[in-house]
Amino acid sequence: MKKIINQPKDVVEEMVAGLVGSYPDYLKQVPETLVVARTDEFDSVALVSGGGSGHEPSHAGFVGDGMLSAAVCGQVFTSPTPDQIYEAIKATDKGKGALMIVKNYSGDVMNFDMAKEMAEMEDIEVASVLVDDDIAVEDSTYTQGRRGVAGTVLVHKILGGLAREGKSVNELAVYGEALVKDIKTVGIALSGATVPEVGKPGFTLDDDEMEYGVGIHGEPGYRREKIKTSSEIAKEVVGKLKAEFGWQSGDSYGVFVNGMGATPLMELFIYFNDVKALLEADGIKVAFTKVGNYMTSLDMAGASVTLIKLDDKRVSLLNEPVHTIAW
Amino acid sequence: MKKIINQPKDVVEEMVAGLVGSYPDYLKQVPETLVVARTDEFDSVALVSGGGSGHEPSHAGFVGDGMLSAAVCGQVFTSPTPDQIYEAIKATDKGKGALMIVKNYSGDVMNFDMAKEMAEMEDIEVASVLVDDDIAVEDSTYTQGRRGVAGTVLVHKILGGLAREGKSVNELAVYGEALVKDIKTVGIALSGATVPEVGKPGFTLDDDEMEYGVGIHGEPGYRREKIKTSSEIAKEVVGKLKAEFGWQSGDSYGVFVNGMGATPLMELFIYFNDVKALLEADGIKVAFTKVGNYMTSLDMAGASVTLIKLDDKRVSLLNEPVHTIAW
Repeated sequence: MKKIINQPKDVVEEMVAGLVGSYPDYLKQVPETLVVARTDEFDSVALVSGGGSGHEPSHAGFVGDGMLSAAVCGQVFTSPTPDQIYEAIKATDKGKGALMIVKNYSGDVMNFDMAKEMAEMEDIEVASVLVDDDIAVEDSTYTQGRRGVAGTVLVHKILGGLAREGKSVNELAVYGEALVKDIKTVGIALSGATVPEVGKPGFTLDDDEMEYGVGIHGEPGYRREKIKTSSEIAKEVVGKLKAEFGWQSGDSYGVFVNGMGATPLMELFIYFNDVKALLEADGIKVAFTKVGNYMTSLDMAGASVTLIKLDDKRVSLLNEPVHTIAW
Repeated sequence: MKKIINQPKDVVEEMVAGLVGSYPDYLKQVPETLVVARTDEFDSVALVSGGGSGHEPSHAGFVGDGMLSAAVCGQVFTSPTPDQIYEAIKATDKGKGALMIVKNYSGDVMNFDMAKEMAEMEDIEVASVLVDDDIAVEDSTYTQGRRGVAGTVLVHKILGGLAREGKSVNELAVYGEALVKDIKTVGIALSGATVPEVGKPGFTLDDDEMEYGVGIHGEPGYRREKIKTSSEIAKEVVGKLKAEFGWQSGDSYGVFVNGMGATPLMELFIYFNDVKALLEADGIKVAFTKVGNYMTSLDMAGASVTLIKLDDKRVSLLNEPVHTIAW
């Protein structure tokens, strides 16, 4: 393992220090926690997310006006503990309660639920939205149902905008539940990620091999085969998304191509180009686009395609300016 | 070689299509060229940069209000041709002339100079600022003198702000020449980058080996050794920068930690943390910070540290909002 780190056990603590130290105008650390919160004043429902670290810039990079109020940084690929999540809620609740945005992993679901109970005992209203956008497989190494992956970033953005408009916890939860059904993702991997404390990749692929449907912690996908061209990969991935959405010519979608961490932007733009061509050939109106590294998996090479069904309100919320380091 | 591409010979063309296709509100392609220009109206001196592709988001990601007017995308790690650079100047000159920001590589210097001559024959006033911030080595595979690397992004930002203020070509060139002397960079690599048309890494390092001072095209650095901890690497790199700047306690500097492409953000934040601690131990006031992947080298693992000597004007220009996809 070659990484620019000090002791593997300290990576999250040092990363949080680096995050807050490099962007002090945006981010502050809640004392004695691994919770990163926005620095500015606000008066809306608190939006709290987080999960295992290793997916940077998720989620701390999306903390700020118009998106999250706080992000809880768990150990690498490990859910944060309930008390840390509770600290995030307590630090950002303005008397209007908190909405938690949770990726669907069993550990996260359990710990965010326990934090919710802790907050409710303090009379803080809390609801949650569970993101399960990864359609590649049902149930997985750490998941009942479908995994929550890159689509979570779009949920942060849209619900963040609605929270800023002054929506209540319940309104956000209801809107979020419907929203998540219209966001779907399929990833591919060209290499595995190495967790610092493990010291070797979570899985390996041959020099000419790729895998469809890999999760953001290296959970198994649905097929391995020799690497194909970008346009052939796009055809497979868009075909899977189409079967799931069942779209019709004239429908409006957003396209979000996300890098897994070690894949150059050049490849992401080429892949986006092929994905977009397939959607347009189907008569889909591409009304929002985003390309870059947003929900990564340490040093995994690969990319995911997230599609979101759009209406005018969602397009407007996705395009609103925000004050974060990574959107 | 495993990459999400189609034909290696088409990567730059398809990347430019993807860039412009994904961010049409920001970027447009100058017809029949690989020049990416800003979409909005402006009335100031045109700022033109570019160079070989493979350093994304540089330079096209910095095209927009407050930074570049246009970026010329050469083939991978290959200077753009003079006629392409000339097209970028012609497409963005508003009668006030153009300033070219050029990284110091022999091919770039020659081709930007020829483009300048072509523009001058059309009575367009053109000057250039040569960026040679990489202090690791003197002369290199493709360079006389020092190489131009990540510090170029800071030059885009500061001169972009001054151009927006209405400064003339000559004023920008004079300011830029002094500015470049106050920006210095040292990079490290943990792995080599693979150019698509070559198909294998430009250099290889052992599983436990790193190299100090590698260039952004994989040009040799100044020492190979077993990988050290982030804080030990920071000590070496900051020591080199200190020797060059000769700073004194109380001086004000900006810190820019840049990823080479395949290094996770987590590591960049940890590395930043160690760099900042060393500067603060020397009594340096860290007045600007930036961490992320801005001047990459395809899929190279590694990072560079750029320091910039600051005054109030530079801090203000670095912090001004801009409208680009990658700043």
